[in-house]
This record gives sequence, structure tokens and C-alpha cells, in this order.
Amino acid sequence: MIILNGGSSSGKSGIVRCLQAVLPDPWLTFGCDSFVDALPAKLQTSDGGIVFAADGGVSVGAEFRALEAAWTEGIAAMARAGAKVVVDDVFLGGAASQQRWQQALNGLAVLWVGVRCESRVAAGREVARGDRVQGMAASQADVVHEGVFYDLEVDTTRTESMVCARTIAAHVI
Amino acid sequence: MIILNGGSSSGKSGIVRCLQAVLPDPWLTFGCDSFVDALPAKLQTSDGGIVFAADGGVSVGAEFRALEAAWTEGIAAMARAGAKVVVDDVFLGGAASQQRWQQALNGLAVLWVGVRCESRVAAGREVARGDRVQGMAASQADVVHEGVFYDLEVDTTRTESMVCARTIAAHVI
Amino acid sequence: MIILNGGSSSGKSGIVRCLQAVLPDPWLTFGCDSFVDALPAKLQTSDGGIVFAADGGVSVGAEFRALEAAWTEGIAAMARAGAKVVVDDVFLGGAASQQRWQQALNGLAVLWVGVRCESRVAAGREVARGDRVQGMAASQADVVHEGVFYDLEVDTTRTESMVCARTIAAHVI
Amino acid sequence: MIILNGGSSSGKSGIVRCLQAVLPDPWLTFGCDSFVDALPAKLQTSDGGIVFAADGGVSVGAEFRALEAAWTEGIAAMARAGAKVVVDDVFLGGAASQQRWQQALNGLAVLWVGVRCESRVAAGREVARGDRVQGMAASQADVVHEGVFYDLEVDTTRTESMVCARTIAAHVI
Repeated sequence: MIILNGGSSSGKSGIVRCLQAVLPDPWLTFGCDSFVDALPAKLQTSDGGIVFAADGGVSVGAEFRALEAAWTEGIAAMARAGAKVVVDDVFLGGAASQQRWQQALNGLAVLWVGVRCESRVAAGREVARGDRVQGMAASQADVVHEGVFYDLEVDTTRTESMVCARTIAAHVI
Repeated sequence: MIILNGGSSSGKSGIVRCLQAVLPDPWLTFGCDSFVDALPAKLQTSDGGIVFAADGGVSVGAEFRALEAAWTEGIAAMARAGAKVVVDDVFLGGAASQQRWQQALNGLAVLWVGVRCESRVAAGREVARGDRVQGMAASQADVVHEGVFYDLEVDTTRTESMVCARTIAAHVI
Repeated sequence: MIILNGGSSSGKSGIVRCLQAVLPDPWLTFGCDSFVDALPAKLQTSDGGIVFAADGGVSVGAEFRALEAAWTEGIAAMARAGAKVVVDDVFLGGAASQQRWQQALNGLAVLWVGVRCESRVAAGREVARGDRVQGMAASQADVVHEGVFYDLEVDTTRTESMVCARTIAAHVI
Repeated sequence: MIILNGGSSSGKSGIVRCLQAVLPDPWLTFGCDSFVDALPAKLQTSDGGIVFAADGGVSVGAEFRALEAAWTEGIAAMARAGAKVVVDDVFLGGAASQQRWQQALNGLAVLWVGVRCESRVAAGREVARGDRVQGMAASQADVVHEGVFYDLEVDTTRTESMVCARTIAAHVI
């Protein structure tokens, strides 16, 4: 199992698609975006759910956390059932977020990968992609890495997604 | 847990979003579309993966089946961890597809829902939505229900998604 | 040229795709959605642009109106240059919106089509599609038709997009 | 008016969104992607339309060319009606494609911008974005620039979209 952690617009999804292309076996991918898509729309306008503020801030509540915990257990179960899984996540809680994954993944081999991108560059890419609230990239760029340990870090500021993916793949095969 | 089974363009996704809106608790949703999104792109051009033919036919191979089995285990694990989950699937294998779910969901309370839509109407909606290979709706409309048992059936031919969702929700609450 | 007018979630886009499929010649399509996609993102958070309120209300300002007028001239020019064009629009200004199109389309043959859908049903479909602010469908269902004249009206409340498209196509060929 | 020309996955759309953000006035944007979206779906499976081959090759036929010519006239008319317009296109015909635009834009001030990206890098980004047929980026990277003249060239190989956009904007204001 591979877990990528990085802020919004740091380039996680692009790396994941490149990883799926270069790794010889087929890997499933899940992440915070697909989890949010699985939630009821009404949780995006409720304090218990996930609220995206106009300034790029993201806050999550109790209902979100409860469903996320069950989802995490499910992803772990897929890996235990034999699937190779790459997850991309945004550790809004830093070290605490990583601990939640560690508990769920107990006994599984995990490669922890930090995806860095300079805040200023990520903010520019956020404008370029055009489908995110402005400000998320800058507000998350550093905080998601606080207290988190990695087996490997990549930095997309000056390195292409495909090159980052090849670096990660070399640790897996 | 709720499992909806129906052919392409029968209206499953619309019913799921209405269900998430009318059910008082927050329900997670997963389905064949989100599973295919989780696969490597290269599995869509490989016999071992999932191939969408130009005539609307869909065939799946061994690698697809292996990952699907692990995914099914993971969805079951989310439900066992306390999440309420609604799945929409296309039982390309009819009764055999249902048995795969039953084995994975052993011990969980499941509401099995058949989503019917007259082939001619589903084919028209396939044109109207514009994002599917023409022919999938007609080729799947009947075959996915062969030998499958349901607690409840809805028919979107002349009934709105929201009305179908309310009917289903009445069996859950 | 064909112009469809109707509220949000009344089914205009589905009818357009069916029209493009059933009409023997190739028709281009443009509409309010593709126009909004052509605007700078910042116009969606500015009083001079287009603001989607949380209750489904939509308000547009002077910059939006100026660009819309130029866009309308451009669509008319495509038709004058020989393209068959079907436009789907939301006449937020009712009769005044129609007059703006009439002035731009001066001298061109236009089929004016009203797309009706009962407010309650459109509101349900708005939930089912899941990509629109709740409340737009209900707030626009009637007001967009005020004072507007049509060559033809269709009602998607109980009629499929494909059937509506065939009715419209019969007036064109 | 600004016209960007570059191969698939060279980064045109990202530059356009950044341009719309940094230019003080509101600019409309259109391009080959929005034009293809305006075509009937059936033109994507017809020799007269536009065919995307499995190897990334793109071929267009007579019906496509006729509608494209009318669309080009319409974009020119928007600019003549006072809208500031930025177009991103793929000059599959090289110099001949540019001449078609020049004839339609006769009398308008146009900034011609070439968007370069090394073939190898564009091919990697094509994998990373995940929504394009593999091979388009490499097959178009050079051929679209043959015989085309520019007021300005940018290269996204090692320069961010936002930086390219600022360079272009400096020629406009």
C-alpha cells in the first residue's frame, strides 16, 4: 500500500495516475476527493460535515470524521483482501491524521510518501486548474506535513509528476 | 446497507443522490462507476481489465474480477465499521454477481433493490446524457436482472428518481 | 436556428443532445452553461458578473451583460456563416431576454421553443443530478417564460427528452 | 484578441485560466475543446467529423471543417462586438490553420502566442491528467508549430502556467 500526503494542488492526483501507469501490477486508487464524492451533498453545507470556506479554509465535523473512520477501515480491508492500493490524502490534522491511518492499516506494509510543493507554485496551479476554491493550496501547503514521517518525499515544484512517480515506483518494485 | 442493481442509464445514480438527500442519516455511496474510476486507465484497453466495445457491449477479465472482489470486501468492511452504505451496481453476471455480494456481505442487513427501466426509454436517456457509448442501455436492460431476487423493485420508466428514492427510504427507516 | 428557453433542470441539455442525434444535418450547440464556462472564474464572485446565491437565486451584473451581448452577436454570426445552431438559454429577464436575441438574430429564421417542467418535478431532478445549487429549478420554473412567445412548447414533466426532440425536429425538417 | 497555439497537453488551458485571472478586464475564452463539445456526438464516429484514433492521431473531415469555419467567423464577430477574447487552438494544419484564423480576424488586433512543451514532458502530463488518448501530446508537439509565426512564444516545459500568463499579459496591457 502507498499513501501520498500533500496539500491541495500539490500534484497528488497526477502522480497517482502516473504510478498506475508505470507500476507493472494494477493498483486501485482512492483518496480524499473520491471520499468527498461518496458523501451526501448535504454534508457540504452542514457543520457536522465538510465545509469549504470562501477563503480556502476547510473544516470537518463529527459526522465527517465518523464516516471517514469507516471508510479508512474499508480501504484497509481492500488491501488485506489482496488489492494493491494507492491512497492520496490531505492530512488536515497532520500527525493525528497519520495515526488514524496507521491504526487502520496495522500489519500492512505501507510506503509513506510526502508530496511537497512550494506554496506560491501550488497557488498558481490552483488558478490554472480552475476547479478549486482559491486559497486552499496556500493554506494547506505546510500544515499537512507537520509531525508526519515519510519513507520518501517528492517535490513537484520543479519535478514532473511522471518523474516523481518513477521515484516512488522504484521503492515498491 | 442498500444495493441497487440496474442497467446502464436506468437511473441508479439519480436515485442514489435523492436517497442521500431524503434519508435522515448520512449514507456513503459507491458503485461500479467509482470502482472503474479507481482502476488504472490501462485496464480499459486490456483483455484482463474492462473493455467497452463500440456497440455498447462490456466485457471484463481476470484482473478486473480480482480487484473487484477485494473492493467488495472493502465496501463490506465499511458497513461493518458502522457506515451506512448505498451501492449501485450493474450485475453483468446476473445471479452470479448477486452471490458475490452476498458472500462478502455475510451477516449484514441488506436491502436489495431492482431498478428497472424499459429498454427503449433507457436508450433515449443514454443519448440525452451524452457521456455513454450508445448501446449499453439496451444491451443491459434485461440481462442484469436475470435470476436476481429483490426486496423491492422500482421502475424509472414513468416514475421520477425522487419518488423512487422515497419508496426505497420507506423500507429503511 | 433553434432557441430553447426553460428553467434550470427543466431538461434543455438532454433535449439538445437528442436533437443533435435525430436531426440529419450536424447542428452546433451553445448555451448559458457554455457561456458561463467561457467567463473568467472571478466573474462568479463579483457583483458585475454572475452570482449564484445559496438559495438558488442567480443575479447578473453589467460586465456579464456586456460580454453576453457580444457572445450573442457571435452566435448570430455563426448562423449567418451557414452553421445550423441550437441554443439553450435561461431567459432570466423573460420577454426582455427574448428581445435581446431577436435583435441579434435579425433576418435569421428562428424556431422558438419553450421547455416547461413542473416546478416540483424540476426540483427533484435538481437533487438527482447533484451538480446544481438547490433552489434554482423552483425559482426559475415559471419566471423565465413570462411574456415570451414560442413557435412550439414541450413539457418534460411526463415526456422523455427524446420524444420532445422528435417533436421539435418535425418542425425543422 | 489573443490566440494560443500548441499541441495537446502543452498547457494551454491552464495558461488561459491564469490569463483570465491576471488580466484586469474580463476576457472570454473559447477553444478547440469547447468547439468539439458543441458538435453532435455522432461527428466523433464519422469520417466527416473528428476521429480520435487509439494511437493519439486526430483526423478531421469536411463537415468538421465547414462548422469550424462558421464557428471561427462567430468568434471574430464576438471580438468585433467589443468582447476581449482569448482562444486556445491546436493548429493541426500548421500555417494553413493560422491563415484560416487570419482571414476571419481581418482588421482585428491579434496577439499570436506559441505554447511549446517538450514532447517527452507533454507525454508525461498526458498520463498525469488521465483524460486524453495516449499519444496525442507526442504526435502534436512539433507539427502544430510548422510554418506558424508568433508575436511571442512561451515554453511550459520548465515554466509554470502562471508565469507564462504574466509574460503574455505584459504584451496586452
